[in-house]
Amino acid sequence: MMKVTILGSSSAKPSAELHPSAQIVNIDEQYFLVDAGEGVQQQMFRCGINPLKLRGIFISHLHGDHVFGLFPLLSTLGLYGRVMPLRIFAPQPFGEILQGFLHYFESRLGYEIEWTEVDTTAHVPIFESKCFEVWSLPLRHSLRASGFLFREKPAALNVDKFKIERYGLNICQIVAAKRGEDVILDDGTVIPNSELTYIPRRAVSYAYCSDTSFSAKLAERVRGVDMLYHEATYAEDSRSVAAERGHSTASQAAEVARRAGAGRLLIGHFSSRYKEPQILLQEARAVFAETEIAVEGRTYEIK
Amino acid sequence: MMKVTILGSSSAKPSAELHPSAQIVNIDEQYFLVDAGEGVQQQMFRCGINPLKLRGIFISHLHGDHVFGLFPLLSTLGLYGRVMPLRIFAPQPFGEILQGFLHYFESRLGYEIEWTEVDTTAHVPIFESKCFEVWSLPLRHSLRASGFLFREKPAALNVDKFKIERYGLNICQIVAAKRGEDVILDDGTVIPNSELTYIPRRAVSYAYCSDTSFSAKLAERVRGVDMLYHEATYAEDSRSVAAERGHSTASQAAEVARRAGAGRLLIGHFSSRYKEPQILLQEARAVFAETEIAVEGRTYEIK
Repeated sequence: MMKVTILGSSSAKPSAELHPSAQIVNIDEQYFLVDAGEGVQQQMFRCGINPLKLRGIFISHLHGDHVFGLFPLLSTLGLYGRVMPLRIFAPQPFGEILQGFLHYFESRLGYEIEWTEVDTTAHVPIFESKCFEVWSLPLRHSLRASGFLFREKPAALNVDKFKIERYGLNICQIVAAKRGEDVILDDGTVIPNSELTYIPRRAVSYAYCSDTSFSAKLAERVRGVDMLYHEATYAEDSRSVAAERGHSTASQAAEVARRAGAGRLLIGHFSSRYKEPQILLQEARAVFAETEIAVEGRTYEIK
Repeated sequence: MMKVTILGSSSAKPSAELHPSAQIVNIDEQYFLVDAGEGVQQQMFRCGINPLKLRGIFISHLHGDHVFGLFPLLSTLGLYGRVMPLRIFAPQPFGEILQGFLHYFESRLGYEIEWTEVDTTAHVPIFESKCFEVWSLPLRHSLRASGFLFREKPAALNVDKFKIERYGLNICQIVAAKRGEDVILDDGTVIPNSELTYIPRRAVSYAYCSDTSFSAKLAERVRGVDMLYHEATYAEDSRSVAAERGHSTASQAAEVARRAGAGRLLIGHFSSRYKEPQILLQEARAVFAETEIAVEGRTYEIK
């Protein structure tokens, strides 16, 4: 089960209503923060997400609108008495910035912060657990930036209980079937594994791509993703501004989703020049119908 | 004319509703920010205050809940195209922190930041304009901290136009009266200045005192202040916690107001343990009747 809760959907200039980039990826009740624009801790409270639940934090790049909310959050976790180490994945020079923060503001933080450098030029696994893995996704921005691809691992095979009964399978035969092997009955009959087992649920995937210009390579790397979050800072009227600043238009975001064969597309990181994101949604849907606006406070389930 | 708009009223742990310390002091439409907890720029938008209007920023101390909102605000001012230099008054080691911010996040900010160090051990004037001055106010906190006393200068004397007519004053005599001098008429009669002039409006004052333990010396230094903002982090049930952490109870805040003979008291910086600040208000009013809760988004005029 994977869910994404949007905490911030604006680009660098926040408004009275919208917050800069931040979202929660919830994988089987393990919570990860992806980017941390100003106000992220308050947005978590508003969404009923306890910051102490965070297992790790992924920072795409070191522009302030993606990271200024991190430091107050880290301080608050200290006030809340967190002792469990916290892993943060971020590009260089995050380590130096973190040292400055700890030196000037939190010289006695009660928990360890374990920083893992994200190589923004490589598409590689950077985190792995029993059930899922996270890959870096090189982005094309005005400074080094990486998206993140969250992929559930295929679930273990379940053995059909009616088949166990029908063939009178013993424990050894059931374990073999769960491993994916065919089963040989006492009379020599071979039962193919596919007849005995089923996949209890499909492994799903989610890609977070912000901030970035259009990248065909990125579309290749997220091929078949179930949900794609792609920045859509501008509409087509500002295509050249988007290119200059290392950003995308809504239709470029949709083009990435189309090429990737994504299940659906969420667009966000809207420029403050668009009072209503409907124009961005229309432009994206003209290219990729399954597009939605990333709405702050809303949770999107990936099935 | 002096007005204070409260942008944040919580202590270090913010909630879904309340923001950490920040307020705007508006003196004759010159806007100053006092402390800059996370979310301050968004709170300014919500209160209809354009961040470009800021003339200067006063930071009481370098705990995150008083300063983490400063850096995103400085970035936004750059995005908005500010070119006018911005003065920031803050204690050491603000200069180093500012250098780190500029180095890692804003190496090409379009305006100058002029930092003035506030000596947190001295009660001295730190800023002066034609109409008002700002004094530092040493506070008793867990690290060096200074409050700020905003004092309007006495307005120039106005000469009563009926008296000008009655005595047939010429320009030289009017100017002498405005300077506060008595006027000698052509027949040798001396008209005392007090008969000719009046003060068009009373000079008012405002003191911001957060964070601090109770200080009798502070009460002396703000004697006669028209409005006192004093932190009231805790209620009496937590008096010893307040003392340990360099904070005040509501009744201690009120005791400072009482000793100072303040016109009125605003209390804020409430601990998140108080879901309702009414208990703090009650305890303060028992000592100093003219106490009010600092409510976010509300503007308090000082008359």
